[in-house]
Amino acid sequence: MFRTTVFVTGGAGYVGSHTILVLLNAGYEVVAIDNFVNAIPGKDGSIPESLHRVQELTGKSLTFYKMDLLDKESLESIFSKHKLECVIHFAALKSVGESCQIPLDYYRNNIGGTINLVEVMKKFGVKNIIFSSSATVYGAPQYLPLDEKHPVGTSCTNPYGRTKYFIEEILKDVASAEKGWKVILLRYFNPVGAHESGKIGEDPQGIPNNLMPYISQVAVKRRPELQVFGNDFNTPDGTGMRDYIHVMDLAEGHVAVLKNLDAMKTCVAYNLGTGHGYTVLQVIKAFEEATGVKIPYTVVGRRIGDLGSLYADSSLAEKELDWKAKKSLVEMCADTWRWQSQNPMGFRGEIAAIQNS
Amino acid sequence: MFRTTVFVTGGAGYVGSHTILVLLNAGYEVVAIDNFVNAIPGKDGSIPESLHRVQELTGKSLTFYKMDLLDKESLESIFSKHKLECVIHFAALKSVGESCQIPLDYYRNNIGGTINLVEVMKKFGVKNIIFSSSATVYGAPQYLPLDEKHPVGTSCTNPYGRTKYFIEEILKDVASAEKGWKVILLRYFNPVGAHESGKIGEDPQGIPNNLMPYISQVAVKRRPELQVFGNDFNTPDGTGMRDYIHVMDLAEGHVAVLKNLDAMKTCVAYNLGTGHGYTVLQVIKAFEEATGVKIPYTVVGRRIGDLGSLYADSSLAEKELDWKAKKSLVEMCADTWRWQSQNPMGFRGEIAAIQNS
Repeated sequence: MFRTTVFVTGGAGYVGSHTILVLLNAGYEVVAIDNFVNAIPGKDGSIPESLHRVQELTGKSLTFYKMDLLDKESLESIFSKHKLECVIHFAALKSVGESCQIPLDYYRNNIGGTINLVEVMKKFGVKNIIFSSSATVYGAPQYLPLDEKHPVGTSCTNPYGRTKYFIEEILKDVASAEKGWKVILLRYFNPVGAHESGKIGEDPQGIPNNLMPYISQVAVKRRPELQVFGNDFNTPDGTGMRDYIHVMDLAEGHVAVLKNLDAMKTCVAYNLGTGHGYTVLQVIKAFEEATGVKIPYTVVGRRIGDLGSLYADSSLAEKELDWKAKKSLVEMCADTWRWQSQNPMGFRGEIAAIQNS
Repeated sequence: MFRTTVFVTGGAGYVGSHTILVLLNAGYEVVAIDNFVNAIPGKDGSIPESLHRVQELTGKSLTFYKMDLLDKESLESIFSKHKLECVIHFAALKSVGESCQIPLDYYRNNIGGTINLVEVMKKFGVKNIIFSSSATVYGAPQYLPLDEKHPVGTSCTNPYGRTKYFIEEILKDVASAEKGWKVILLRYFNPVGAHESGKIGEDPQGIPNNLMPYISQVAVKRRPELQVFGNDFNTPDGTGMRDYIHVMDLAEGHVAVLKNLDAMKTCVAYNLGTGHGYTVLQVIKAFEEATGVKIPYTVVGRRIGDLGSLYADSSLAEKELDWKAKKSLVEMCADTWRWQSQNPMGFRGEIAAIQNS
């Protein structure tokens, strides 16, 4: 039987590794790359630990190359070696705070990397790309819930967000310039949780930028307490409200796109969220209930640029992709905790244990 | 006496060459580069014809390198060879129509080139940059005249315009990330005319994209007639209205920035226009009156994305830079005609004559 081969950039990362797991289980062939800038290399150096575990979990294998998108020659060699039909493009620098400090690195890596990727796709006649975009392209909401018609780009508050917005625009222009392209922009809301096995999960390096990994690192006592940034937003309890989506639901969203690719328009954006917002305090409470672990926290001032509420209207994806997020906040918390408690130091833990043995 | 050395990218082009002329006359040292993608190489290969003539006109010399901004190593070697104090960044692909057909080339060259340039500037501690932006960043006007507070980027109608907008945003982020930068964004309206000598001027390759060079090529009988795109806009005679500015006034604007650089904010945008709009038919009439040459024209339908009226509020530049456009539409036409009639085939004419002799 003929099987579609999907090329995945940034495949070793959080959303990448979960999506590859779902792709393999759905019968796709996967060729993945990662430069390990956000991910942990594997113990034998041939495959990152996250994807090593994906292979164990699925009983299937994938092809992996350690590679940087800025290395166009290596990218071309992969495209000449494999018959690729679709690209899922996760690879990116992704820290909001860091992007304000070293914006040029963000623009060079995220935009330069994407230009290389699309040029190589063009050269090899691969014209299907699913881009890992973000709700951050909407900037400060003019209304809620955010649907795909909401203006984008006008109030992105940081260079990271701007790279996502700029790449969306570049890909739209590519799709307009030449026939045959399918450009699917997936605007993620707030991915959390982990595969139910607890074998793979989010493994941020350094201080986590996002709420859930911070909570779970406090729970596992890697950090003393959580700081809650602001309790004077216009939300039920004053703390920031976000649309958290289970990473397995998010991963399924990519497979839903692949299944519907033939019927799709040239260029289309979909929100991937649950449509429901939870505040920081609600997430803390749900985590405590799901795990029985108390999360100490202190409320401090708002961070510059933080927004009060963000949540998605994901009805377009439901209608056109027959996809809907299914997992509850309790499942998100329980699965996060399973991953974190089994892997208190993330993937690094196992590598360190082996190196020290 | 110590003299400031200015590094000029895209120095052989239309606005670049006129600005270098003004810089040399004002006593600045100039190091210029160009990749000749929009310009004509000189007869001896060492300096482009436009800058060869600038040296003749000023009686001063400049340093020139044929170089592409995508070649970062060569760029670094120039920065290590010269003590540069300020960069004026003109280099860009600049055809609106072409940008819709080959958007990736526009993004790679314009954005990738700028990222290289700024990274090298950073490495060598050069933190003053004047960027050649465009009124196109405003998109469809929400009000007129356009001042610098008008929203940007939301309705750019083509990839060329988006590169200008994206670069503005990237440069703003650079200025925010690190102390000591001066980023000056000059938003040009419609540069026309030529140096009064008629020795240098606009020399588009292929079919001109802009009105004035098209008119002057019709006048010199390189093209049979002018097409006027649309006469049903909301303007006095229905044809499109633009804010034409004499290229020598525009060039003076750059020197005005250099003179005021110390007092400037970290990142600031200035409109460079006259504040006065002329329609296509008014320009044709002015050209005919200034030159005595009849311009045959036909009115055809609007082009997609064309806007009715655009003109600048340039009062901020007048206030903060003590700069104001001085030359009239008649002067713009007369100077264009002097250049075009003396150089019917542009700089190419002289090169061809030498090659054929």
